[in-house]
Parts: sequence; structure tokens; C-alpha cells
Amino acid sequence: MKIPHLLLAALLCGSAAPVATAAPTPVEAAKKAAPIARIDPTFWWVGMKNPKLQLLVHGPGIADSKVNLAAYPGVTMDGFQRLESPNYLLVNLTISPEAKSGKLKLSFDGKSKTKYEYELRARETGKDRVQGVNSSDFIYFLMPDRFANGDPKNDIIKTERARTIARDSMYARHGGDLKGIEQHFDYLKSMGVTAIWPTPVVENDMPKASYHGYALTDYYQVDPRYGTNEEYRQFVRNAHQNGLKVIHDVVLNHVGSYNYLFLDQPAKDWFNRWPSFTRSNYNSQALNDPYGSKRDLDLYNRGWFDTTMPDVNQSNPLVATYIIQNFLWWLEYTGLDSYRIDTYPYSDPQFLMAWNKALLDEYPQLGMFGEAWVGSTAQQAFFAQNIFEPVDGFKSNLPGVLDFQSQGAIWDALKEKGNVTKLYDALQGDWMYQDATRNVVFMDNHDMSRVYSVIGESLPRLKMGFAWLLTTRGIPQLYYGTEILMKNFSNPDGLVRSDFPGGWKKDKRNAFTQAGRTPQEQEAFAYVSKLGTYRKAHPVLQTGKLMQFIPQDNIYTYFRYDDQGNTVMVMLNGNDSEKSVDLTRFAERLNGYSAASDVLSGATVSDLKAVKVPGYTALVWELKK
Amino acid sequence: MKIPHLLLAALLCGSAAPVATAAPTPVEAAKKAAPIARIDPTFWWVGMKNPKLQLLVHGPGIADSKVNLAAYPGVTMDGFQRLESPNYLLVNLTISPEAKSGKLKLSFDGKSKTKYEYELRARETGKDRVQGVNSSDFIYFLMPDRFANGDPKNDIIKTERARTIARDSMYARHGGDLKGIEQHFDYLKSMGVTAIWPTPVVENDMPKASYHGYALTDYYQVDPRYGTNEEYRQFVRNAHQNGLKVIHDVVLNHVGSYNYLFLDQPAKDWFNRWPSFTRSNYNSQALNDPYGSKRDLDLYNRGWFDTTMPDVNQSNPLVATYIIQNFLWWLEYTGLDSYRIDTYPYSDPQFLMAWNKALLDEYPQLGMFGEAWVGSTAQQAFFAQNIFEPVDGFKSNLPGVLDFQSQGAIWDALKEKGNVTKLYDALQGDWMYQDATRNVVFMDNHDMSRVYSVIGESLPRLKMGFAWLLTTRGIPQLYYGTEILMKNFSNPDGLVRSDFPGGWKKDKRNAFTQAGRTPQEQEAFAYVSKLGTYRKAHPVLQTGKLMQFIPQDNIYTYFRYDDQGNTVMVMLNGNDSEKSVDLTRFAERLNGYSAASDVLSGATVSDLKAVKVPGYTALVWELKK
Repeated sequence: MKIPHLLLAALLCGSAAPVATAAPTPVEAAKKAAPIARIDPTFWWVGMKNPKLQLLVHGPGIADSKVNLAAYPGVTMDGFQRLESPNYLLVNLTISPEAKSGKLKLSFDGKSKTKYEYELRARETGKDRVQGVNSSDFIYFLMPDRFANGDPKNDIIKTERARTIARDSMYARHGGDLKGIEQHFDYLKSMGVTAIWPTPVVENDMPKASYHGYALTDYYQVDPRYGTNEEYRQFVRNAHQNGLKVIHDVVLNHVGSYNYLFLDQPAKDWFNRWPSFTRSNYNSQALNDPYGSKRDLDLYNRGWFDTTMPDVNQSNPLVATYIIQNFLWWLEYTGLDSYRIDTYPYSDPQFLMAWNKALLDEYPQLGMFGEAWVGSTAQQAFFAQNIFEPVDGFKSNLPGVLDFQSQGAIWDALKEKGNVTKLYDALQGDWMYQDATRNVVFMDNHDMSRVYSVIGESLPRLKMGFAWLLTTRGIPQLYYGTEILMKNFSNPDGLVRSDFPGGWKKDKRNAFTQAGRTPQEQEAFAYVSKLGTYRKAHPVLQTGKLMQFIPQDNIYTYFRYDDQGNTVMVMLNGNDSEKSVDLTRFAERLNGYSAASDVLSGATVSDLKAVKVPGYTALVWELKK
Repeated sequence: MKIPHLLLAALLCGSAAPVATAAPTPVEAAKKAAPIARIDPTFWWVGMKNPKLQLLVHGPGIADSKVNLAAYPGVTMDGFQRLESPNYLLVNLTISPEAKSGKLKLSFDGKSKTKYEYELRARETGKDRVQGVNSSDFIYFLMPDRFANGDPKNDIIKTERARTIARDSMYARHGGDLKGIEQHFDYLKSMGVTAIWPTPVVENDMPKASYHGYALTDYYQVDPRYGTNEEYRQFVRNAHQNGLKVIHDVVLNHVGSYNYLFLDQPAKDWFNRWPSFTRSNYNSQALNDPYGSKRDLDLYNRGWFDTTMPDVNQSNPLVATYIIQNFLWWLEYTGLDSYRIDTYPYSDPQFLMAWNKALLDEYPQLGMFGEAWVGSTAQQAFFAQNIFEPVDGFKSNLPGVLDFQSQGAIWDALKEKGNVTKLYDALQGDWMYQDATRNVVFMDNHDMSRVYSVIGESLPRLKMGFAWLLTTRGIPQLYYGTEILMKNFSNPDGLVRSDFPGGWKKDKRNAFTQAGRTPQEQEAFAYVSKLGTYRKAHPVLQTGKLMQFIPQDNIYTYFRYDDQGNTVMVMLNGNDSEKSVDLTRFAERLNGYSAASDVLSGATVSDLKAVKVPGYTALVWELKK
């Protein structure tokens, strides 16, 4: 998630937003008033590895109640506890491995008496549930509101605060939804895509400008403008049947100010509070600056991301448990495959370790990746599994991160008169990771200028970028539309979040089809498809080892290879003119091969001693014995 | 040591230099021919912690000899061994703690019979011997040939290959020497300097352009143009009596091609060899690139630094022992205080670990620092004691490094419209070091453009640089002449290695005295003296803790403080205009103080709530209760 521009913040924070530190609005609190408004998690399962479950019960005056659990084999109530608010109660359960699915009968005995049947489900099985994301994948990252509108009936939901659709406004909702994505699974598959990462699909019931999804208002609800919870679950199933994984975008650091837990707060310390609105300094360096002040650290960790985004206090163990359970719930409920974690370093460090551990204990294959938008490889690796001794008790156990270092490098490499050595440099720093192949590589996303604009709308150089993206180490991620030359600069952000042409029935053209693409767009799309499908069919590009050579003459050469004798050579010529390259210095990887197949042209290459590589061109050669 | 410019390399490598891979010239080999030309170490001591000693005996045909050691209480000969060359023999001794000083009687029985009395000395004591360098020091770095000519009699030494003095040539010798430095101890002390680091003082008997000292030709000999071995020893003693430490500049990676061990080589594998001259790729990233090729690694570690600088093969354990003993010898012989290690990462990694361990085992206080001229804090910390798990078996045990990251940062900060946040960033990365206060901070050196030129000859900004240098963490190092505004750009290097005006009797002016300095030069010098002597008198600036705040409005504020209630505040205004600064955000460090003394002006500051700091100015405040 991008650090908000002050300009954008001003636009976002209209008068309809609650004042950041204001008490909950009674009207809002009462909105869902009922003896028991809800219990989170909304249901649970028997047979989870961790037998503990903590229910957060929400209802007016519920705190006065005594709780009783009717006898249920294998389930015991360890106790219940009040919070600061009269409207919450925690109930602690232990669910033994022997417990069967069914309904727990809870009774709440206070000023009024209430009963609640809490559902314990049986866990689903199936090998395509929670598959985890890894370097065999090719991720397509999209914004559901802006990709395709498959179900116009859910465009406007009358119970939500924002009830307008305005495709000509970059801050309003445009109507895209889960169904729209599903309708284009074939399009994604045609590029070799294997995983879909939508921006958060959870409810963002904010008065305005929450189409992006990063202002969560209900931890347990899909935004109805995208679909129902059950439709999301079905979306995951459909994706799996199409060989596509689903990555769920997660915000741990903050919520939207209309989140029900902010409107009616369980306790003051559920959120990080300041005497008046206090913005984060957005500088993760405060976290591990050996000379840092407490003030800068607090501002970073406890300051608010934006006026409409209260900062969650995960150092409160009850909050931590609430969040951990929520993300176990989504996995188990939907079978989704992995998590991408927004604004990762902004959360409490100890909480992050606990959150990861809880999820990975239950789903070891999860392979999550976090957003740590920082300025150096060391600082980035600090937030992934790394080779550092713990710093102030923090030792990251996050499998991977979004690789902003190689993203910066590919921009530097692809700009006119760019420097491909930056790509070498970026990967060289991988010695700091336990396994850098878990990192996600990308050229652009929703928070930055689109790469095509950054590099001066050069199709040859963009194609070099695609070649790099799909052959380097890690998990490649394509931002929707980059394959059809969508462009723009990121200030304001909305410009890079335009609708995919053809995602709406009334669109003048449909760029999901070749007929709807310009020749240039088709050239870009075909290039991605060629390499993406090649990558999908060739494990050496997914899990093969990497060997890179120090660039010379602004030409960067590397190899993917495996123990089965498969080798792919990639050469990026960062010059605007043809260069002759002596290949003999690559003998370590070329020895044993006598020819190559040019993956992009299909031509046979019979000389492995030297090559002439045209300006701004990538060679991708499959070596032959 | 700087990566040689190709242009400069061409200038340096005239026809007089031996061809890099050529066999030793018989004439050269015979030059010192005698039954035993030399034994290294040239003498040794009883009572060293490590009882082992390996003598390298050099003499024509000596390898045929059987060696006998006459009975000597406490000393045993463990054996002797041949090398590839007929002219060398190794003798392995064990010197027990009980052994007394005296002369070992060695006899060599081969085609001829030779006797050799090998001296074992008693170790000297004295608390100012081998004091180690640490953050209480302020280092003055100079080139002996270019600083001051104290003894014109040693300007030309007829037995050396280069026998000309030419002060108008940037590559010729100019005549400076140890005596010249000694004559200016008072000048150095007037700035608060506590340690002198000359470029290497060891013999560089090359035909040309070895005035810099980095082309060692005799491991055991001071260059006679600087003084004799005994004069160097006396130089160290005099320095110590003046409260000045001496740092000895060390090259482990290579030697000059006229080194006696290269002219008559003990074994082919004493040096790293290539089919033809092969230059290093100068890229330390090859060392710890997890995807690196063997070729790039070999080029880095085993390639030659220059045509006239053969690459020493320290992976040969006999070579390693030879070098380790040499540097124990210099410490014990002279009592010098510490080592600065040139081109540190170019040497064999395992050797570096062994070399450091051997020296630190004998002299734990040594506090050495290495030159690792690399592009990131992580890569720099890789070569110091750090918090990384070992990488390919390498875990650096070097106490400190020259901090090229903060050097780059101070340039960025001091340039017109510079960015002081770079200074914050550079230090924030210290979380990767075990103890970054052992690092040496500097603004320029003999291998780069002089900072005064880099920053556009702005005296106000240079003064900010001095303030930073003398108050930040680590060991400050001043390059000779920067205090009197010496300037120039580094291409070619000679331009930044000009003579200090006044170091030669015939000089038109003597900038060692106020009368010889321009008003601007005097202003710079006085500024350094003021802060340098203040630093020397105030341990809080030497060993005090550091707290830095994230810069705001291009103003960088930090504090040095200790548990005794001493606090110094430093504020650098990177803007060209006056700024008002609210000091309340620094409450963590200002609380408990009510006033301050402005160290530079002597003025009293009574308001700690706000300050107006002029453009391009450093405030240095000693806080008062």
C-alpha cells in the first residue's frame, strides 16, 4: 500500500469520514444492535492443529453475561472474560481432536438471556485447497473493481455507505467483481498465468474511495459489490478447477474507520491512540535503527496510515488472537492458496512473528509474501526469512517479500540508456535471504507508475522487461493491463488503476480479444503469452537454479538450469544498438551444449561461441545437446 | 586502494616493469645472492602466545640442505621442508614459553655448508605499545612522500630502482619522509589528532610510480626514502610520546612485481597465475553472489589488481603463515598501534579469517579496519564483524571497515541542494554490524576527489562536514590538507596527492603555520581545531551513545550522550537558508536540560524549545542542566 499523497489524503478524507480519534457514533453502533450482533470467528472447524479458539462476542450490554456451554463431547469452555466495552465478551474454548462437527449451544445470562448456536464444521479435504504460492507460479495482480464487471446486479448495494457507480471518477467504484474475473480465466490462462491476486476482496464499507480494498470494515465479509462470501468460496473452487491459484490480499496494520470494531470498540487499546490524529512517518528504518528514538519508532509502528485508517494495536494479545483466527478462517473456509500482506513492516514485529507462525504451523506450504516497500536489499530481507541474527527480538519468519529492489532495478535497466547491471546487483543481494526464490518479482503495481510509461513507452524495452520477469528467480507478478500496454503515472494513483478495456459490456473495445487490441498491444500480449506459457511448461524456469554473470558492455547474461540437463540462457542487451557478444566466458553453463532453440522466434541457433544481439532485445535460448 | 584507471595503468606500466607472468630475471635473483640471502621473519621473539614459528630461508641452492639446530633450551626444530624452488627452505620451530632470548645456531648442510645465527629477542613492554585504534581516536591520513620532507638526505637512495625526485611530476617521488611527519606532530596535535595513518611505509622498490606505497617489494623493510627500520621504530616511539598513535597501512592482496618473492619465487603457487595477464573484475559482489559463476569469483579473488601487482595466493597455507608472521613482526618490532588493510575483500576469505584471528589472539586490542570499497551497507558489513550467518564458510572477524557508505552520504549531504537524510540512512544500516563504532568515517582520501572540490568549494558546507565527521559515531579520519582546503578531482589520482604547502623548505608558503594560510584556509583549519580539540577533551563524542532522529525539512539532528549526564546535540541544516526548528520532538534527549553552550561560538543558549539555524550550518551544543 502506498504512502498516501497529502493531496490524495485530502481528497479521500471528506467530511463523511469519522474523525479519527472520535468515539464511535451511537447510530453506527446501534446499526446492527441485537442481543448478539455477531460472534467472530463466525464459525470454526474441528480438527485444527491448534485446539484453542477465542470467540469475540458482540452485543449490546453482553459483557454483563455469564456464559455457559452445554455439554459437547470434546469441547470445553476454558472461561470467558470482559473487555473494557460493555458490548463485548470473550469466550475461550478448547476443541480436542476427538470433537465432531456440530453446533455448540452457548447461553449468555445477563440483563437478558440469550442463546447462540455456534457452528463447528468438519474440515474439507482436497489436494487443491491451500496450495501455497511458489516459484512455479505466475501471478496476475488486478483490482477487482477495475478489471471486469461480470455481475451488474451487485454494482450498487443499498446497505453500503457508498451507493454510486461512476466509471469516470478515479475514486468511485466502477462495478468490477469476482464474476468478472471468472469470466476471463481463459484470458489469464492463455498467458500462462497460474495465480490470481486481487486487491482485498473483503468489505470496505467506507463512504468513499475504498474501491481499492485496503480499508477493511468487516474481517469476515466479502465486499458485496464483488460477491457474497459463498461466491468468493466458489470463485476459489472455479479458479482451482482452471488451474489457477487465488492469493488473498491482507491488511494487518490498519482498518477502515467504519470497521465495526472501530465504530464500537472492544477496548481503548484495540487501536493505537494519540492525543490527536498522528500520521505514521512511513519510515521502516525507525524499526531497526540502532540509534533510533522511541518517538520515531512509535510514529512508525503506532502512527496512523491515514486519517481514515485507524492503526490496529496488535501488541494487545487479544487483538493478535482475533486477527490470527481471522486469517486461519479465510484459508479454511475458502481453500484460498496464499496471502499477500499489505504494509507488512508497519505492524507490531512480535505480532508478525506470531501471525506467521500460527498460519505456517497450520498450513506449512502457504508461502506468503509481504509488502515491504523499503530502500535496500538488507532492509527488505529484514522482513523475510533471512540470515540475520535477531534484532531487538525480531527475526522474520515470513517466507517471502515483494521484491521492490529488483523492481527498481528493472526500471533503471529499461529506461532509455538504462543500466542492466542494476539487475545483477539486485539479485546479488540474495545472499541475505534464506530463500529468495520465494520473493515476488514485478515491474509495476497499483501504487506506482506503470512501467510502460516509466520507460518512455518503448515496446522493445518493455519486451525485455517481460523476458526478465518470466525468466529470473522468484515468483513473477504481472499487473493487469501491462500486457496490453496500459500506461500512466501514479500521481494521483487512480490513473494507474484504470478499467481493463472490455471488462464492461458497453466498452468500445474488448482488449481481452485479439480483435480488440491494437497491433502494438497484440505484440506485447503475444510476447507475454509466448514466454508465460513457455515458462509454465518448463520447470527449469520455475525451480531451476540461477547463474548470473557480471554484466559487461551493458549486457546482462544469466542461465536457469537444473540437474536434469535443462538450461535456458537469457541475455538482455541494454544498449540501443546491436552488440557482438563472445559467449566463451559463459563456458561453465554452455559446455556440453552444441546448439540452442530461440524460444521467442523458434529459430535454431547452431553457434554457441558468439552471438549478435540486437539493441534493446532479450535473447531466450533453450540449450540443446 | 583504488581500481586503477586504464589510463593510469598504462602510465604506470612502462617497459621497465617485468612482464607479469614472466620467470624471475636471473640478474634480479642474483642481486642479493649469498649462501643465505635472508631468513624471514628477520628475527623473532620469545614469549609470543603462539609458540610456532616458520622460517623462510632464501639462498641459492639452499633447498638441498639438511638443517640442524644446535641445542637451545626451550626451542625445538619440528622439521624443515623444501618448496618448488631450489632457493628456498622452510624451517619449522616451536618456541616454548620458557625459552630465553638469544641466538639460535642454525646450520645448513648441502652442496655448501652455511651457518646462521637467528635472533630471538625479548618482548618489549610498555603500555603505549600496540594501543589499538578505537573511537576515542581522530586519525590524520597522509602520504609520507607528499606531506613533508624532513630529511633531504634520504630523498634519493642509489640502491633503489627509481632514483629521481621530481616534485612537478605527479607519479614521481617528491621526497617526503618519516622525519617530515615527526616535525609536524605539533601541527597535528593542535587539531586534536590522536593517530597518524601514513600510506604504506614499507619498501616499494619499483622502477616508477610507487610513491603511494601499495606495491610492496620487501615485507620486512621500510622504504629507505622514508627512513630506516630503526627510524620507523623510533618514529612510533616519538609519536607515542606525543600522544599520537601510528596506524600501519597493509596490503595483503598483492605485492609489487619487483618483490623479491616474485623475482625469485618460492613456488609457482605462491602467486595466482593465469595463462596471460588477467585483471581482477574489481567486483566484490562475485564473492557472495549466490548465483555467481566460478569465473567471476576467480577473476575477483585471483585476478591481478594491475600488471605490476602480482596477486598473492593466500590459500596456500605456507603463504598465509608467511604473511601472518610478517604482521605480527611489525607489531612486536615497532609497537605500532593498529593496521589499516588495503583492498581487503580481494584476499582469500579463509585467509582473512586466519590472519585476523592470529593478530587478535596476540593483540586483542588491535582494532583494525579494512578497505572494502563497496556499494551498500550490507556488502560493507559483510567484511566486518556482523550479524550475518556465515556465507560459504566466511564470517568476517575484522573489527571495523572504512565506512564508504557514510562517505558517499556526506558527499550527497554537502553538495549544493544536498540531502542530509542520506546521513541518517547510512547510519541506520549499522544494525548489521556487531559494533559500528569501530568503523572509520571520512570525507575523502587519496583514491577519490577531494571533498572540497566535490561540494563546489563551499566553505560553509565543508564546515558542516567537519562538524559531522567529528561528532558522528566511529573513528573520524581526516585526509591531509582537507583542513586547509586542498582540492582537486581524482582523475588522475595524482592531483589529489599534492604536496602539503610548507612541507618542503623551499616552498613559497608554509600552511602549517597560520601566517602561511589564507583567511579561508585559516577559517577551515580553526574550525577543525576547535571541534577536534573539543572532541579530544570530551569522551561523550568519542564513546558516547548516539541517538538520531529521522531528518525533517532537510535538517538532520542527532545526539551523543552518556550515562554521566553529558549530552551534545548536533544539528545540520542542509538548506541554503535559515530554518526555524521546533526542538520539542527531541524531548527524549533534551528533557532534564535547561540550556546549552554553543561549542563553536561559545555562546550560551537559554531556549531549548526552538532554534533558528542558519543555512548550511551545523550547530554543536553542549547541553547544560
